[in-house]
Amino acid sequence: MAVISIVMGSDSDMPVMAKACEILDRFGVEYEMNIISAHREPDIFFDYAKNAESRGIKVIIAGAGMAAHLPGMCAALFDGPVIGIPMHTTSLGGKDSLYSIVQMPSGIPVATVAINGGANAALLALKILAVTDEGIKKDLKDYKEKLKSDVMKKDAHLKETGYKEYNK
Amino acid sequence: MAVISIVMGSDSDMPVMAKACEILDRFGVEYEMNIISAHREPDIFFDYAKNAESRGIKVIIAGAGMAAHLPGMCAALFDGPVIGIPMHTTSLGGKDSLYSIVQMPSGIPVATVAINGGANAALLALKILAVTDEGIKKDLKDYKEKLKSDVMKKDAHLKETGYKEYNK
Amino acid sequence: MAVISIVMGSDSDMPVMAKACEILDRFGVEYEMNIISAHREPDIFFDYAKNAESRGIKVIIAGAGMAAHLPGMCAALFDGPVIGIPMHTTSLGGKDSLYSIVQMPSGIPVATVAINGGANAALLALKILAVTDEGIKKDLKDYKEKLKSDVMKKDAHLKETGYKEYNK
Amino acid sequence: MAVISIVMGSDSDMPVMAKACEILDRFGVEYEMNIISAHREPDIFFDYAKNAESRGIKVIIAGAGMAAHLPGMCAALFDGPVIGIPMHTTSLGGKDSLYSIVQMPSGIPVATVAINGGANAALLALKILAVTDEGIKKDLKDYKEKLKSDVMKKDAHLKETGYKEYNK
Amino acid sequence: MAVISIVMGSDSDMPVMAKACEILDRFGVEYEMNIISAHREPDIFFDYAKNAESRGIKVIIAGAGMAAHLPGMCAALFDGPVIGIPMHTTSLGGKDSLYSIVQMPSGIPVATVAINGGANAALLALKILAVTDEGIKKDLKDYKEKLKSDVMKKDAHLKETGYKEYNK
Amino acid sequence: MAVISIVMGSDSDMPVMAKACEILDRFGVEYEMNIISAHREPDIFFDYAKNAESRGIKVIIAGAGMAAHLPGMCAALFDGPVIGIPMHTTSLGGKDSLYSIVQMPSGIPVATVAINGGANAALLALKILAVTDEGIKKDLKDYKEKLKSDVMKKDAHLKETGYKEYNK
Amino acid sequence: MAVISIVMGSDSDMPVMAKACEILDRFGVEYEMNIISAHREPDIFFDYAKNAESRGIKVIIAGAGMAAHLPGMCAALFDGPVIGIPMHTTSLGGKDSLYSIVQMPSGIPVATVAINGGANAALLALKILAVTDEGIKKDLKDYKEKLKSDVMKKDAHLKETGYKEYNK
Amino acid sequence: MAVISIVMGSDSDMPVMAKACEILDRFGVEYEMNIISAHREPDIFFDYAKNAESRGIKVIIAGAGMAAHLPGMCAALFDGPVIGIPMHTTSLGGKDSLYSIVQMPSGIPVATVAINGGANAALLALKILAVTDEGIKKDLKDYKEKLKSDVMKKDAHLKETGYKEYNK
Repeated sequence: MAVISIVMGSDSDMPVMAKACEILDRFGVEYEMNIISAHREPDIFFDYAKNAESRGIKVIIAGAGMAAHLPGMCAALFDGPVIGIPMHTTSLGGKDSLYSIVQMPSGIPVATVAINGGANAALLALKILAVTDEGIKKDLKDYKEKLKSDVMKKDAHLKETGYKEYNK
Repeated sequence: MAVISIVMGSDSDMPVMAKACEILDRFGVEYEMNIISAHREPDIFFDYAKNAESRGIKVIIAGAGMAAHLPGMCAALFDGPVIGIPMHTTSLGGKDSLYSIVQMPSGIPVATVAINGGANAALLALKILAVTDEGIKKDLKDYKEKLKSDVMKKDAHLKETGYKEYNK
Repeated sequence: MAVISIVMGSDSDMPVMAKACEILDRFGVEYEMNIISAHREPDIFFDYAKNAESRGIKVIIAGAGMAAHLPGMCAALFDGPVIGIPMHTTSLGGKDSLYSIVQMPSGIPVATVAINGGANAALLALKILAVTDEGIKKDLKDYKEKLKSDVMKKDAHLKETGYKEYNK
Repeated sequence: MAVISIVMGSDSDMPVMAKACEILDRFGVEYEMNIISAHREPDIFFDYAKNAESRGIKVIIAGAGMAAHLPGMCAALFDGPVIGIPMHTTSLGGKDSLYSIVQMPSGIPVATVAINGGANAALLALKILAVTDEGIKKDLKDYKEKLKSDVMKKDAHLKETGYKEYNK
Repeated sequence: MAVISIVMGSDSDMPVMAKACEILDRFGVEYEMNIISAHREPDIFFDYAKNAESRGIKVIIAGAGMAAHLPGMCAALFDGPVIGIPMHTTSLGGKDSLYSIVQMPSGIPVATVAINGGANAALLALKILAVTDEGIKKDLKDYKEKLKSDVMKKDAHLKETGYKEYNK
Repeated sequence: MAVISIVMGSDSDMPVMAKACEILDRFGVEYEMNIISAHREPDIFFDYAKNAESRGIKVIIAGAGMAAHLPGMCAALFDGPVIGIPMHTTSLGGKDSLYSIVQMPSGIPVATVAINGGANAALLALKILAVTDEGIKKDLKDYKEKLKSDVMKKDAHLKETGYKEYNK
Repeated sequence: MAVISIVMGSDSDMPVMAKACEILDRFGVEYEMNIISAHREPDIFFDYAKNAESRGIKVIIAGAGMAAHLPGMCAALFDGPVIGIPMHTTSLGGKDSLYSIVQMPSGIPVATVAINGGANAALLALKILAVTDEGIKKDLKDYKEKLKSDVMKKDAHLKETGYKEYNK
Repeated sequence: MAVISIVMGSDSDMPVMAKACEILDRFGVEYEMNIISAHREPDIFFDYAKNAESRGIKVIIAGAGMAAHLPGMCAALFDGPVIGIPMHTTSLGGKDSLYSIVQMPSGIPVATVAINGGANAALLALKILAVTDEGIKKDLKDYKEKLKSDVMKKDAHLKETGYKEYNK
């Protein structure tokens, strides 16, 4: 049964949201994935967000661009933690999405990650679950080790080849 | 019966929204005024916005600051024109409010006015009603004449006193 | 007879303005379309904007980029509602156009939509006409249903294929 | 025993961090509070962040302004969720703090709240703990009801007094 | 007979425009000063700008804030050089005024000076007149000498007192 | 003999500066063109700017990007009008260039045109010369007529073809 | 004999530059302090910057606001390291100063510190001298210890009093 | 033995950091080059930065993008001068990197160069070493001569070919 719900308002956000899925797939944590627009189908959206808790959802990851109301409206309706991913936008670079998501009024927080930060949204959801889930906590420590060893390998490679070869 | 509905998410927006009321009072157009938060009471908000049309509301004027979802969510639920007023904010000067209101996705427009533009929101609502209301149309023309004569008087005063006296 | 007048200052704005036309064509609402520069032919522009009302125009949709004076000057000369579309710009992303259009002084509102928001400008014009036109009001409700069912189909497609296939 | 650790780099951040404490005091959740600078005492900071987990800390709330490295460095050293509060700044309004906190690289998320969002940081921490703590979950629902009834009271007051009296 | 025309759209711009007057008074160059709004009285504005040349005006100095169309519309109607002064604004700091004035389309330049740069607008007008007016050219050289000697005096004063006394 | 001096700090600015040349070529006004860096060869730059007046230069057009000191340093050394062109930049879109050029301190104005506004810089220089040169003044009026008839032709073309054909 | 030269273009920068002096006074490193404007007295400025090296100056600290050319022009003329301090500005918050100082073209670096960062400019100058001066290096280590113990004391004080008392 | 240490948090920064290497190679100054992430391997990073001085490093050049904590954390741990290079970023153009690097708190300066300013970072490091190294000082003067003669050649080429040929 899904414990994380991923939602986006438009399928143009899919490439970024897919990065969240890849992380969750890697960790073997169950999730559901939805395309639901708070603006174009507010009734469906309300039902989705109000019933998420009763479906067993512990954390919502919501991605949105431009006016980007989806994460904030999730936080208004769902009592658990909501993680917001601001989408990059052509004209304002994602500053519009970022402000619309992060600048929530007192009482209704959205945990905002970087512009296009799909992977980090999933990792944050996992860190939240890991507060009481020792299995995920252990997997996160392994993942962190992997991040570390990846950088170490690149550093070793640089030291072997020098920067001129590395850039090729 | 009210034809315009003014709504704000927080009573800290009152001084700006009051500028809209003053215009509507001057034109003698009936309106209702509400403090309803899309974030803190989404159910009440949904009822408000979905039932506005059946209450006879023709235009909604919604003011909001920071993440500022109120105008956009009104436009998702109410079929008539929604006018959004971005509130000035201490940290970002209202750029957050402006982007959250104006950058709506295709399909769900919000007619956005200037930051803190309470009076202009009301005038825009009146212009919308005046499309088929000759009385308001005439009053708008009179109001425009008044704006014009006010500037003319200032210009005349400047020409009498000179800039040194004028600044005093 | 046209009830909506679309105007742009430069034919480089055509792709965005065409999105407005496509909406109006779909709804079968008559409009005129003009390339008139407030800067390069102010006399022609003045005649255009001052006479719009007597030609039967109810709403003006004006698109402009950079210093973007066209919508604001329309609002100074035409008594009905003016909808402004800020054009995306290479250097400032359309922030210049947006500020020049939305930050109108008290007394002269411009109903501003998103950067490059051609479709939303037309939908807003239709919502304004629909205040007293039941036919357009009904068509807008149908359009909204279509927006909704489009998202629902995408969501259903995602649930069938999964995100890996969807992205392909 | 504290389960939430509040940390700030400078005591100038105290008024904002105090808003987080007030929320946690209200909910009766134990926390510790520290002034530790990642820049001025990196060794102390490293010990603090590396040992937080073994002290029983489940969530860190870190506030910082300007270059604002504190939340991100906490996230590099502490395996649980880190919530970052960007401080308002005189020159850049907190945009510097916001970008420095939210734009974390892939692998190391910081859950960012609004500029000066002390109360929301605490509420987000509580929502995280509530994922498996039914007591806090219930208290959060009560708190939400209170937020709702506060707005309802203001709305009722407005309807009694009208906007002219309300502003006084 | 006035050779420079100073124009502002609102008397709230007076303190900045007065700095231009003080420079022109000092140089003894004749000017006229007007409060004319392109938005609130477009007909009066058109007459003003179109007839400026025949009244003997060589240069227009136009100050405006927010959407700030006044300088650009002057440049559309008056064939001589137009100098634009962007006004500081509360919400956007004058960035709105600056973009609206400086980002003119090809064909219609506005010579833009700094935000609130009233004195510099006047000096630029004088430099333009000085292209063929030896008297003003000489006065400008004297003024430059004065600017120089003012800085030299401050430097000498600093060297006498030291920074601790200087700040008192 | 050249009366206008065009100067750029780097030949990467050439495409924008060439637009100024094309205007001046069209009007048959003599100009010189230089690549001189205030940063890389300050002595050469000083000689250039200090001697411009004695070489017969009436107006300097200076283009620069990023920190963009060239126009402002010209204005410090040359007594005539200096026109500054801010170059578009990859990272900041030209906002860096614009602020570095337009925000000059009191006493030393630079007449700033739009980002990449090469043509407008030349037209502004011509307007300055036209203050006392009837030939250029007449040519500017002709040029303005041409701008106008160009827009009129596009409008006529649109009315013939409709927007669908126009976009092809 | 002075080894550090502090220079500002206007005495309005004095309060920020004084913070640099206070640091240098504390460390007992000799410096000179000048008010010299690159814009208002370019000849004096050129002599100052070109002769700094022969006067024994090792590092220049230059503060400037708005168009802020002073640090960059120092770097063009003086061969040693130049440290630039961007001044806070009323309209753009110092973003104008920052961009004008930090965005230097390739070949002519300016070591830029934070907006109004007078103390850090001095500390950076000391770090540069300390590369080969063991005395200053030792004093910097002591200073760092002091910074550390100051934070530790504040943390201890907080733990004694609690946040409610601390804020008083 | 290396006296300069180049460090980047991610190998995506390599093309910019390579520009620093090319300068150092040209001057024949020894350097080390590292890929070390303060976020992904904080222990390795701490060892690196704390031991740099004892390895003989005089100056650190640190490049970073987005939240960009690397240069600031180097400055917290290494007592010598740290030069920070803000990386261009897709969404915010490098403004995020710039603010995160330059806005350091009092006590811990980072010498910040332009966005993507790899070459200037190296030149600044060389200027720092040249304070007491006459060989490097001489080489820097030669390099400056070369920069100068490069511009002079371009200017001469322009004067031969004219702008039309130059652009080809």
